[in-house]
Amino acid sequence: MAMKLYCFGESGNSYKAALTMTLAGVEWVPVFVNFFHGDARSPEFRALNEMGEVPVLRDGDEVLTQSGLIQYHIAEKTGKLLPQDHHLRQEVMRWVLWDNHKMSSQAGTLRFLMNFVPEEKRPQEVIRWLSGRLRDAFKVLDAHLEGRDFIVDDVPSLADTACCGYLYYPEPFTFDRKAWPNIDRWLDNVAALPGWKHPYDMMPGRPSDRGL
Amino acid sequence: MAMKLYCFGESGNSYKAALTMTLAGVEWVPVFVNFFHGDARSPEFRALNEMGEVPVLRDGDEVLTQSGLIQYHIAEKTGKLLPQDHHLRQEVMRWVLWDNHKMSSQAGTLRFLMNFVPEEKRPQEVIRWLSGRLRDAFKVLDAHLEGRDFIVDDVPSLADTACCGYLYYPEPFTFDRKAWPNIDRWLDNVAALPGWKHPYDMMPGRPSDRGL
Repeated sequence: MAMKLYCFGESGNSYKAALTMTLAGVEWVPVFVNFFHGDARSPEFRALNEMGEVPVLRDGDEVLTQSGLIQYHIAEKTGKLLPQDHHLRQEVMRWVLWDNHKMSSQAGTLRFLMNFVPEEKRPQEVIRWLSGRLRDAFKVLDAHLEGRDFIVDDVPSLADTACCGYLYYPEPFTFDRKAWPNIDRWLDNVAALPGWKHPYDMMPGRPSDRGL
Repeated sequence: MAMKLYCFGESGNSYKAALTMTLAGVEWVPVFVNFFHGDARSPEFRALNEMGEVPVLRDGDEVLTQSGLIQYHIAEKTGKLLPQDHHLRQEVMRWVLWDNHKMSSQAGTLRFLMNFVPEEKRPQEVIRWLSGRLRDAFKVLDAHLEGRDFIVDDVPSLADTACCGYLYYPEPFTFDRKAWPNIDRWLDNVAALPGWKHPYDMMPGRPSDRGL
């Protein structure tokens, strides 16, 4: 039976799971969560995930949440996107954790505040502050990608499918690809992998559905 | 040879690693990183960790960064603080990721802005916004801890040593223990574990060293 991913198109955290599953060649179907209608905070959804967040993966009887955990579940099940070598595996985990801690959390929130909050309610001081923190993260990633095609050992891994989670979205969030040439090149490398799709072509829901 | 942890007392992320090592019974020594003097951003430190962050663990020839990865390294090496059962291990990882993504990142940053930035430079809108996000995280954790002594399977694990990382510090960061009775009780349970110490008693460096 196909795995089910509770997700929505605008969620970069969902995209990390969706892209990992797609590149690893597993069969999955999306279940649309109407986040902008408050569905992720509903009692029904909380019963599925007490954290009130997408993505959630249902794989048979198993229910998994947190994009990083879903990524590892898929990699362990398929043997894809995770090296065998212990030190390289540690290096993958290091970048998955760094992304969750330092990059996606800033990028996703900044994109939300700059695009999905009504213009008159956007907290400008928070936006400026987050964009500074995101710039610091881009500096680290761009420097790391100098001379590299992929983040760990020059082959695609969960580190790539984590770190790229928010970086293909077209809405402005102070990310100018051309200002970060190594990140720009790496995003092209990831997008050239067989099966790759843009988040809005992989999961239901996009801003134009809401007239944005 | 004892492991070396590059750290400083005010760093809750370092504390997660330090507490994990201490509770797991491994021998380790702290190496003080003078963060408030800019040492974590120096070229020498960047050569050790391109991410420019503590903690960094040196275990023989291995150099590991990101608190979550260090926690896993210790648990795998000692067999402590990580269940054997696959589903319980997944549950531990889920909470470690959630902490990195949703709780410590808000708590650590908020405490920094409210205490270690000169009063006239504190960004009040950012502080209000972060405190709202941190409250959402506390709601999730407090609800989860209802009827539980520890986060996963009612035994101490990396989930606990991750999530408590910033919660014993005395400086104000809009965390009122008494407002979250389950978190309050759980923090007492963690503090009662053999070998537990407060972060300022486990690692060098504390605000009073800088006249705060």
